[in-house]
Amino acid sequence: MRNGRVFGAPAPTSPPWACENRLTATDETRTRTELPGVETSEQITPAELRLATRNHGFPLEALSYDLTPAGLHYLLVHYDIPVVDGESWRLRIGGSVANELSLSLEELRARPEVTLAVTLECAGNGRAQLSPRPVSQPWLLEAVGTAEWTGTPLRGLLDEAGVDGCGVEVLFRGLDRGVEGGRQQQFERSLPLAEATREEVLLAYAMNGRPLPPQHGFPLRLVVPGWYGMASVKWLERIIVLDRPFEGYQQARGYRLRQTPDEPGVPVSRMMPRSLMAPPGIPDFATRERMLELRPCTVQGRAWSGFGPIERVEVSADGGAGWGEARLGPQPSAWAWRSWQWVWEPPGTGVYELCCRATDSAGNVQPLRAPWNLGGYANNQVQRVPVVVEPAA
Amino acid sequence: MRNGRVFGAPAPTSPPWACENRLTATDETRTRTELPGVETSEQITPAELRLATRNHGFPLEALSYDLTPAGLHYLLVHYDIPVVDGESWRLRIGGSVANELSLSLEELRARPEVTLAVTLECAGNGRAQLSPRPVSQPWLLEAVGTAEWTGTPLRGLLDEAGVDGCGVEVLFRGLDRGVEGGRQQQFERSLPLAEATREEVLLAYAMNGRPLPPQHGFPLRLVVPGWYGMASVKWLERIIVLDRPFEGYQQARGYRLRQTPDEPGVPVSRMMPRSLMAPPGIPDFATRERMLELRPCTVQGRAWSGFGPIERVEVSADGGAGWGEARLGPQPSAWAWRSWQWVWEPPGTGVYELCCRATDSAGNVQPLRAPWNLGGYANNQVQRVPVVVEPAA
Repeated sequence: MRNGRVFGAPAPTSPPWACENRLTATDETRTRTELPGVETSEQITPAELRLATRNHGFPLEALSYDLTPAGLHYLLVHYDIPVVDGESWRLRIGGSVANELSLSLEELRARPEVTLAVTLECAGNGRAQLSPRPVSQPWLLEAVGTAEWTGTPLRGLLDEAGVDGCGVEVLFRGLDRGVEGGRQQQFERSLPLAEATREEVLLAYAMNGRPLPPQHGFPLRLVVPGWYGMASVKWLERIIVLDRPFEGYQQARGYRLRQTPDEPGVPVSRMMPRSLMAPPGIPDFATRERMLELRPCTVQGRAWSGFGPIERVEVSADGGAGWGEARLGPQPSAWAWRSWQWVWEPPGTGVYELCCRATDSAGNVQPLRAPWNLGGYANNQVQRVPVVVEPAA
Repeated sequence: MRNGRVFGAPAPTSPPWACENRLTATDETRTRTELPGVETSEQITPAELRLATRNHGFPLEALSYDLTPAGLHYLLVHYDIPVVDGESWRLRIGGSVANELSLSLEELRARPEVTLAVTLECAGNGRAQLSPRPVSQPWLLEAVGTAEWTGTPLRGLLDEAGVDGCGVEVLFRGLDRGVEGGRQQQFERSLPLAEATREEVLLAYAMNGRPLPPQHGFPLRLVVPGWYGMASVKWLERIIVLDRPFEGYQQARGYRLRQTPDEPGVPVSRMMPRSLMAPPGIPDFATRERMLELRPCTVQGRAWSGFGPIERVEVSADGGAGWGEARLGPQPSAWAWRSWQWVWEPPGTGVYELCCRATDSAGNVQPLRAPWNLGGYANNQVQRVPVVVEPAA
């Protein structure tokens, strides 16, 4: 009950894809230099820079806020941000249903309203730490954010449409259009019916109490608590109940864990546990290296998992050799990150490497090094923050 | 009058540093491979990636908006975004003044209020197009945005403080703290007194009608219309009237145009003219290459300059060999970008390179290739957008 998992589909307790991830912390560095059919690069490529300069990361010092201030939430946009006229826009619901629906924004807002704080993280968060690095949006660790989403439960609308006995999945189509894997497409993702009918799955029209900004899906987006962000389709145009599994690009090619392009792979779904700290001290502008003075220091952060509540956060000041227990604090909602803090007394001046790792109620622990995969997804290896401790002024 | 330049300092009509920039469009490619004391890199370095993933670019499709929606404005943060308690915060004004002032946010909000749409651009916009590329925040073209800033004119407060006869510059100190060039510092920049007393220079507490978000300088920031963004100091803590020119890091070392580290260089100040187009068609996710169908296409964009109103925008579909005149539209204010559009009828399928260039009332024209400088500042060379025209469906 604590994590709100009384509705819809029961939460699985571990990721379907990776026993490797349930690990004790071991260093399983992989060094691959040539992989057939795999586009990687040691250096950041111009294409990655084009992605990095348009998508937005969450600056980690903003971990101090329960709810991420508008404009600091991470943002991954596959194509262009569409300009949508909220007055003429309608959401259509069809497919394997008894009653097709076509709803205006006003009609959606007149339905039962729920507000829920939800942590969303990009499935590619951590990608740029892999070696070799899959060439795509080169996130280091900053593709996360927590917002209060306001909307109406999807389940109510599916009930109203009347899913017929053939329905097995629900497809969500966005208005954003582009080319990916050589194919023109609108962004489309599906959910199994049992996931789509979890009560906390929302059709959201507001973020932090304001209408959705264009870049977060105006006028309407899906919010799937617990899942990586690709499930929470933005700029919704159509919802289609399918009588067979969806085989579109973002489901069958993108967002799958595999080692080679020929494997079908396993779909990415729920967020692996992760803890992030706000790097303590002050930064060097150019290098982002951290300096702090020799005195007790409270290290603060947040942790989350799509597989269960966070039960433990550990912090290390020596790169993961020894660990201390962080004190867990509250969280804005059952689907949002949990705060933690840990008091560190540096034994002297010098260079240290701070790390943190989370454990969820299902027993999943962050690895020191996550297993490699072709798309660079779900890399939840522990954050490492080098700091230089200097004499107190 | 048209551009609001009836107040304070008269606007110079051309940049003080660069006759080269008043150019006819010629290709003056520089290829430097080794420069003593200059940190450059052909490939994007890890340090640049750390900057690119935390600073935010303006996605160019958002050029469709007169005012940049919250969260899409560019964001360059030198150190960490400070968390400031607006209740206990005070702005102190001192130095060469008759009356020192200490003002709460409430007291500032009770003063005469002005709302002004202002285009701000980072001085490093375009840096990553230089070769060799100075290693810093690797902006391609997206470090810009236009917001409505609400605040009180700085001039009124300086009048109230009573600048004495020794005052020559006004120093602005932010609460953000870090290390740069090996020195611990708070972000500090000064303005000549004549610039600081231009009526349109604001102490702003709201952006697009809402309190400043943390990342844009809550609770108070400076807004200096016409200048590159480094002048618009965020998170203001102190304003100090100086009796001699400020020699701090961000004035004497940073934000100067020079060819070698030993030169004193020339300070960066007003924005060079620039025009940007919203890339037409649809993008490829990974490469951002644009595809459009063979039919007439309206190319739209915005142009601005800190040296005078935009008088002309030209567009080329062949990489700058031939140019057509764009139709100029309105602008949200005298200090904000001006809209333009140009109808293009592609002569056939194939690959084209779209370019646009702006001319301001002072006769400054964007170059096809801007002169190189050590910091990668003020690179206003024309935008180039390759597009693939495909048969109409």
